[in-house]
Amino acid sequence: MKSFEFHLKTKVFFGKGEENRTGEIIKQFGINRVVIHYGLGSVVKSGLLDRVKKSLDKVGIHHAELGGAKPNPEIGLVRELLQLARTEKAELILAIGGGSAIDSAKLAAASYYHDGDPLDIPYRKHKPTKGLPTGVILTIAAAGSEMSNSAVVTEPDTKTKVGFNSPLNQPLFAIMNPELTYTVSPYQTAIGIVDMMMHTLERYFVPSDKLELADRFAESILKAIMEAAPVALAQPDDYDARSTLMIASSWAHNGLTSIGKPVQMPVHMMEHVVSGLYPEVPHGAGLAVLFPAWCLFYYQYDVAKFNQFARNVMDVHLNDPKENAREGILKLKRFFASLGMPLTLTALGIPNPDIDWMVDKLTNGGTRVVDHFVKPLDREAAKAIYASCR
Amino acid sequence: MKSFEFHLKTKVFFGKGEENRTGEIIKQFGINRVVIHYGLGSVVKSGLLDRVKKSLDKVGIHHAELGGAKPNPEIGLVRELLQLARTEKAELILAIGGGSAIDSAKLAAASYYHDGDPLDIPYRKHKPTKGLPTGVILTIAAAGSEMSNSAVVTEPDTKTKVGFNSPLNQPLFAIMNPELTYTVSPYQTAIGIVDMMMHTLERYFVPSDKLELADRFAESILKAIMEAAPVALAQPDDYDARSTLMIASSWAHNGLTSIGKPVQMPVHMMEHVVSGLYPEVPHGAGLAVLFPAWCLFYYQYDVAKFNQFARNVMDVHLNDPKENAREGILKLKRFFASLGMPLTLTALGIPNPDIDWMVDKLTNGGTRVVDHFVKPLDREAAKAIYASCR
Repeated sequence: MKSFEFHLKTKVFFGKGEENRTGEIIKQFGINRVVIHYGLGSVVKSGLLDRVKKSLDKVGIHHAELGGAKPNPEIGLVRELLQLARTEKAELILAIGGGSAIDSAKLAAASYYHDGDPLDIPYRKHKPTKGLPTGVILTIAAAGSEMSNSAVVTEPDTKTKVGFNSPLNQPLFAIMNPELTYTVSPYQTAIGIVDMMMHTLERYFVPSDKLELADRFAESILKAIMEAAPVALAQPDDYDARSTLMIASSWAHNGLTSIGKPVQMPVHMMEHVVSGLYPEVPHGAGLAVLFPAWCLFYYQYDVAKFNQFARNVMDVHLNDPKENAREGILKLKRFFASLGMPLTLTALGIPNPDIDWMVDKLTNGGTRVVDHFVKPLDREAAKAIYASCR
Repeated sequence: MKSFEFHLKTKVFFGKGEENRTGEIIKQFGINRVVIHYGLGSVVKSGLLDRVKKSLDKVGIHHAELGGAKPNPEIGLVRELLQLARTEKAELILAIGGGSAIDSAKLAAASYYHDGDPLDIPYRKHKPTKGLPTGVILTIAAAGSEMSNSAVVTEPDTKTKVGFNSPLNQPLFAIMNPELTYTVSPYQTAIGIVDMMMHTLERYFVPSDKLELADRFAESILKAIMEAAPVALAQPDDYDARSTLMIASSWAHNGLTSIGKPVQMPVHMMEHVVSGLYPEVPHGAGLAVLFPAWCLFYYQYDVAKFNQFARNVMDVHLNDPKENAREGILKLKRFFASLGMPLTLTALGIPNPDIDWMVDKLTNGGTRVVDHFVKPLDREAAKAIYASCR
């Protein structure tokens, strides 16, 4: 068991209609001026934005807004959002949406008191010690950014996805109404399911001396997601299934499943390279392609853990541990397929992947080893895994 | 799934030697004056108190102290602690110990800005909206008070244990070093194990429409405790087992296992009556006697949930659901016995329990029904359960 600090700062307001209390909730924190950030289309069309603004007006909270958040949020929009927050003297940036809107809001908020460019923060040129708080109205269960301390943005010139972790990144509050996710398409729902599973799986497969309580929490989350997933896909307005997915997405990424364990996210790093180069690739879909390939490469080096995963999560019970471990991975792959996920780079829309470029990017020209506690993810390993995804 | 708010305010510092950073940790929160509250003996004898004071001195934090916390903390000591905190102009009350020291600290802290008696708060005559913050250095894994929003004290004149829940009760920080629990006796360790299991079990058996993620978290905690318990008893300095118990005790009572569910604690209420009347009864031991009896009375009204408990937690797999449910309860009872817990009121040192008094106290003379969602815990039910414990 590793020493750790744990601090979940985000206050969660969960349930039907909670978004209509946004103004009242923000007032609780003594905040009077906000800038709203959201994505394209649905937040406006569904009337959600209007309802939120009405709720703010009701308690006299001043607000301005900026839309346009897209998957794999770009730094340009963050700069615009930061400018607006300063002009408006905002006391909070309120993101309505999923990971993209939230992550842009986080970086703009963390940059508020920094004189230089927001990119200085993910590039480690500046470490912020204060920032504006953020708040979230969640509309898709996926990224878990609503309770996490991390944020990721894309720098389009160099095709680089960069992230940074900071306690500043934990939102002040997250308003979660599962009904808001009823209209999320089956494909987007599936991508979200992969995303939240992956936040859990990557933490789970960081080896621990023994089965930690954190690993049991991870198994709980994975089983709950896999039970709720087909229900939510078949019946998009099933409140309980949507609720389970929403809670699972947040708790998968808020630190619960890495209590007492080291954290690393090698497959996320591999995927960020892919969706940095091919920005039209949704993060979750990229993960669905890469993760089984990563497992099939690595399971031989940690048969016990992969076998435990097969037994406790995938309900596979063959006698031979190694065979069982492999069958568990294949069953997970079939589960991803059942969600309609692509299983190859070709199916992801990348028939001719530039694997050498990706390996170079991941390993920084061969100079960086993306750590794995069992076997280092070096140039050769990366190449083998990317190549096996074609 | 029920609507809910969730806010875990307590910052956790977990690991070997963390208590030596107490001063530095408190400084992080901008606090310069503290009153320390602790129990009898071991905190002083072990040198822990001295080490903490040295750590405070090192960063110039002013401190005063009051010892004497006992199991089932009494209101007199709370009044004394409150007085000291005011005299010393404390900015934080630091509890060193377990539930007793922490709960006294919580009530004194919540009373700080109240002109009347601290008892006004648990008796609902005064609802505090601000108080002093509290901090914790945990020395026993049991009560879970270090992250919870609840506190319980005893009013010796009327032999009443009264509690109150408030966000104010959540400590500002909890310093947890499992090594500090190495010297906890096997009996006290066992009592703590029952206590943390009971915080989980009571929430688990509040019926839910379906298996909630919260219930899966509960199962995870219970399994982890039952795995770590015999190790910690056989090998008191097993760091991993002590770590698991410490984390389990906190997470069992911090709200994780009641996300989206109603909360009620009927067996805690039954036990508070017992240890109110017989203050020498340790809370955990009382629970070990009462809970199996409560289960054996109630399982027929919710066979599905008790059967699930038998399968998922106790690993009992008989074909007949009702028989399986019963066998799961009996296996839990055997587990409590294996910890050295008493299984009857007689074994608890109460050979002639005043059952009518207890029933009257619990039901307020028959006027109050301690709710159970399946079958009300009324006078008759209470009498049957208490009587079956003799």
